[in-house]
Amino acid sequence: MTGPEKDLIARFAEIVGPGHALTEPQDIAPYLTETRGLYHGATALVLKPGTTEEVVAIMTLASETKTPVVPASGRTGHVGGAVPREEGTDIVLSLERMTRIRKIDTAGNFMVVDGGVILAEAQKAAADNDRLFPLSLGSEGSARIGGNLATNAGGTAVLAYGNMRNLCLGLEVVLPTGEVWNGLRSLKKDNTGYDLRDLFIGAEGTLGVITGAVLKLFPRPKGHQVAFAGVASPEKALDLFNLAANCCASALTGFELMAHMAFAFTIKHTEGARDPLSSPHPWYTLIDVSTSDSQQSADDMITGLLEEAFERGLVEDAVIAKSEAEIAELWHMRETMSEAQKPEGGSIKHDVSVPVSSVPAFLHEADAAVMAAVPGARICAFGHLGDGNIHYNISQPEGADKPAFLARWGEVNAIVHAIVLAHGGSISAEHGIGRLKRDELARIREPIEIELMRRIKKAFDPAGIMNPDKVLKA
Amino acid sequence: MTGPEKDLIARFAEIVGPGHALTEPQDIAPYLTETRGLYHGATALVLKPGTTEEVVAIMTLASETKTPVVPASGRTGHVGGAVPREEGTDIVLSLERMTRIRKIDTAGNFMVVDGGVILAEAQKAAADNDRLFPLSLGSEGSARIGGNLATNAGGTAVLAYGNMRNLCLGLEVVLPTGEVWNGLRSLKKDNTGYDLRDLFIGAEGTLGVITGAVLKLFPRPKGHQVAFAGVASPEKALDLFNLAANCCASALTGFELMAHMAFAFTIKHTEGARDPLSSPHPWYTLIDVSTSDSQQSADDMITGLLEEAFERGLVEDAVIAKSEAEIAELWHMRETMSEAQKPEGGSIKHDVSVPVSSVPAFLHEADAAVMAAVPGARICAFGHLGDGNIHYNISQPEGADKPAFLARWGEVNAIVHAIVLAHGGSISAEHGIGRLKRDELARIREPIEIELMRRIKKAFDPAGIMNPDKVLKA
Repeated sequence: MTGPEKDLIARFAEIVGPGHALTEPQDIAPYLTETRGLYHGATALVLKPGTTEEVVAIMTLASETKTPVVPASGRTGHVGGAVPREEGTDIVLSLERMTRIRKIDTAGNFMVVDGGVILAEAQKAAADNDRLFPLSLGSEGSARIGGNLATNAGGTAVLAYGNMRNLCLGLEVVLPTGEVWNGLRSLKKDNTGYDLRDLFIGAEGTLGVITGAVLKLFPRPKGHQVAFAGVASPEKALDLFNLAANCCASALTGFELMAHMAFAFTIKHTEGARDPLSSPHPWYTLIDVSTSDSQQSADDMITGLLEEAFERGLVEDAVIAKSEAEIAELWHMRETMSEAQKPEGGSIKHDVSVPVSSVPAFLHEADAAVMAAVPGARICAFGHLGDGNIHYNISQPEGADKPAFLARWGEVNAIVHAIVLAHGGSISAEHGIGRLKRDELARIREPIEIELMRRIKKAFDPAGIMNPDKVLKA
Repeated sequence: MTGPEKDLIARFAEIVGPGHALTEPQDIAPYLTETRGLYHGATALVLKPGTTEEVVAIMTLASETKTPVVPASGRTGHVGGAVPREEGTDIVLSLERMTRIRKIDTAGNFMVVDGGVILAEAQKAAADNDRLFPLSLGSEGSARIGGNLATNAGGTAVLAYGNMRNLCLGLEVVLPTGEVWNGLRSLKKDNTGYDLRDLFIGAEGTLGVITGAVLKLFPRPKGHQVAFAGVASPEKALDLFNLAANCCASALTGFELMAHMAFAFTIKHTEGARDPLSSPHPWYTLIDVSTSDSQQSADDMITGLLEEAFERGLVEDAVIAKSEAEIAELWHMRETMSEAQKPEGGSIKHDVSVPVSSVPAFLHEADAAVMAAVPGARICAFGHLGDGNIHYNISQPEGADKPAFLARWGEVNAIVHAIVLAHGGSISAEHGIGRLKRDELARIREPIEIELMRRIKKAFDPAGIMNPDKVLKA
């Protein structure tokens, strides 16, 4: 199979106009890989439509000509979801020019945005209007709302605000047939038929192209405080989380857990990172609270929590941030943790979740199994303890051969995921399925579940042209 | 078309065993109507399975024999969703014997329940374990979890906790083919393919039978307080809501608005109801806060809010409950408001939502249009202002002929819904579509939306036997 013929390429290019259809290899190159370099795709054409109407025209022509289309957003995903296939059959549809904030309604607490708006820009637009858009993640400077929605993005504030599915009131979606579903509703309650919105959210661009969205806005917290604490074990961290959940209730915005190794690499490799504690600890936690009334109440809440935690013997040492700058520093260390592994060689990664109460057991069992399989492995587990979501990353043994280590990716995944599944967990807590976990998903789920997904895919995309081979094998 | 033959009835009956298959008219009668008496169905058979396996056997036989099945739960719905069709072709599958609390996990904050558990029993099971299951609605003493899920129930605590879709982590569903989807997961984050859970939730039993669910549990609030305030207008009520949302943030659990007429009928007809204020007001609000730390903080919060509200001229008069008993009394008046209309004759009802900021405009426009069409109509609007969800009920003019008034149901609906739609609102905020609003939904939505729903229905229920003619016309 080969890519689209020259005249078809010209017809597609005409839709978006001069300068917005890329055909030169050097222009196309950035669209062919993803963040971890796991996939290297091929395409003859990258289209950058500027409006929903242009997306409609592209999908209509694609549908007529059975041309497979891969929607691309900020391309910060980790599972190969936005990379075209190697055969060169797919064209890429990039949302990067669709960056309009269409409307901000502070009375109704929502905003309407194009699918290509960069997450940080959406946050800024909310802040400029004295509101909070709470989705927050490491790649927020380049990730775009359409991709955040397509992957049901999570991030660091899920505990208080939920995933992208909880942050979105309505969608505008261009279907594989070129029709538009106008679901740009801004209602808090609407029980009128099947939940199409939540079906498109998290479908990773396999059911349609998200060109617009209504996002929820929240009051800006008046108080914000972060504590960083060294703890002896995941069990102590879990007890600390439960204490925090009880003391702080919905003011608890984030609760992160980090293994010593992950933290040590960050101190070593992240510019400006420093250990705020005076001695090392086996595990670290970052506790983030946001209060609606005052800074004083956030300070009091964190102080009270730490006092109680020391009294109960849950923490070994702790500091409270002294300024917004220090809060940002502490979060920055957590957010660059994956990046800080790079200088240490290859890293085999997992994005798993288990019930919150099972996190300690999962960590102990996984550590033992991984160390047995890969002696000397350096386990850099970190993540959102409050959501039961651990980024269970494993750096290669010191001095090991990187390609040889990475060649064991599937084997190590199998070991870790078996433990995850034994705890009733998920093999993809927030990064999605894409291509990376597609075949594994089909293996671990009961056939009826995959079959139901296939039927939905077929119902929405009968020609199979919408991001084919992602989530489900075409 | 007629109902199933005698030998088929016997085969179905055999599955559930003696005493659990109803065929006598007097036993069947309660299953043929709904709360408002709008529909009177017919059936030859009501089955009361005791286990998921029996539901599987029923759906397998139904699938083989193309027998339409209507799932029935607490049968407290308002749109005819659980009533069999008049032709007598459908059999009824009642969840009422499936009432097991399968598991309560206080460390993981979830419980696993059968689909037939009564909502009040689920609340009680949570409370017995020092947890809160927050779904709360007038019919909680008879509504069942399966139906609450099938209709994505809302109720009075949506503001703080969300609809049923937000309160459920996983489902067990028997499909129209008799297969089981085991999605009983208890994970906070899980991005592994299409969102089947949220598709079944709110599908009103047209895609499968919900036999089990994992429900979220929350810490029990340590403080709870309610204020009842008279206000001059919906605009003042909205300002008061925005003030409350700002002051109380996530502690604001409920914010209800009631028109004078709705309140007056309640005082007159609900046993034990009394006006807590010394003089009448055009509108009333009920403000409910729950705090995580102490009763004192809830008291302080409500007191502070009312002080600020008086200062800003938002309320005319207000009282704060002096005890849990008084809180219950105030809520009881709100929850019996619909019931209290009955002695006043016929009531034409609407369950609508608009963006919160549009509620005052909607109420003024709807009042004017309805009074013009039905002079003397007594408008009993009340509902969840914080969700933009108004139960816009209209009692007949004094002394009017009830059947003649009710005969104008469709005409009055059309007037009110046109105003709702002009505000970008929903014609069914929380009660669902069922049969009552099915044809109207098809009229007001773009054809592609109905078409997508039809394709989903077909993908899940190719034989069209699962609660046919509800939500979508068969």
